[in-house]
Amino acid sequence: MQVSTEQLFTDARTARGYLPGEVPDEALRALYDLVKFGPTAGNCTPLRIVFVRTPEGREQLARCMNPGGNQAKVRAAPVTAVLGTDLAFTDWLPTLYPSTDARAWYAGNPAKTHDTAVRNAHIQIGYFIIAARALGLDAGPMGGFDAGAVDAAFWPSTPCRSLVVCTLGRGDPARLHPRDPRLSFDQACLLR
Amino acid sequence: MQVSTEQLFTDARTARGYLPGEVPDEALRALYDLVKFGPTAGNCTPLRIVFVRTPEGREQLARCMNPGGNQAKVRAAPVTAVLGTDLAFTDWLPTLYPSTDARAWYAGNPAKTHDTAVRNAHIQIGYFIIAARALGLDAGPMGGFDAGAVDAAFWPSTPCRSLVVCTLGRGDPARLHPRDPRLSFDQACLLR
Repeated sequence: MQVSTEQLFTDARTARGYLPGEVPDEALRALYDLVKFGPTAGNCTPLRIVFVRTPEGREQLARCMNPGGNQAKVRAAPVTAVLGTDLAFTDWLPTLYPSTDARAWYAGNPAKTHDTAVRNAHIQIGYFIIAARALGLDAGPMGGFDAGAVDAAFWPSTPCRSLVVCTLGRGDPARLHPRDPRLSFDQACLLR
Repeated sequence: MQVSTEQLFTDARTARGYLPGEVPDEALRALYDLVKFGPTAGNCTPLRIVFVRTPEGREQLARCMNPGGNQAKVRAAPVTAVLGTDLAFTDWLPTLYPSTDARAWYAGNPAKTHDTAVRNAHIQIGYFIIAARALGLDAGPMGGFDAGAVDAAFWPSTPCRSLVVCTLGRGDPARLHPRDPRLSFDQACLLR
């Protein structure tokens, strides 16, 4: 499918409000089917997602967001994704990395396991936001929510832990603020 | 610039070796000028990059990689990026988020500052890998290296800390292994 770097990066903006319209479940499946191919350490792919798009689910999630803007954003979005990590991702390694005993890399090392789960899921959240834009969706990632409450509501009795909550839909350009500055190449990068 | 989701996700592979040819510095600047626009929490954009492409720099970096394959990969790649985070990113917030005193969100909370620096830099590493592919480069991200040695060599006396090392160039398709499996939508996602 053809896309442009403008659509993905230079013209894309974080959505603050959405135009009317549904996001079909088929689009959410297509989104995952892009995200899943992005590289992770030893193919651990720990990202787990709850796509919330029913009125009951949306209200339950909204009540877990920080009061104020974030609650309203979830209530107004066609879909909101809870993006988290599976702290027990190593259970899947015989499937995901069949060429060797990859579980041995993590055995007896819970700190390494947790670090790998959290770091690689965040790399995949980067893939998720760009993949959503590739499919014509705008994304509104947020960190302001009660992660324990989200986990209890959407991942009860599981080793999945929420990291970012991200609204999805067709962004309303009238709701955007002016874009904030970025660091220049010479402020952020070195050539050696 | 036109690209395709196949080039970015479904057909793209992690490079294990590179075809001959340089990557001009202009391409590295173009890469950063895509990556910088991806969203981060409160526009904190903590990712910092060292692009290593001189023979001396390459050898210095190779010696910091885990013995075996990772050293050889760095020695064979036209460019290798050290991707890290600026633990003092809050110093830039008056520039990056001028509409309010965003430094106050982190004041007196070193754990939150560190967590924000590490998590958001990893989201930006996801943007970096996809942006490289958008520019026709293949990426070879690696976690197996001595981070303290990399920081001492490339970011001495700074608050920058390396997270991922990523080779860049035109990947050699003859060097690829078969692709590993991915979890299905129903294994990784819930609809609510």
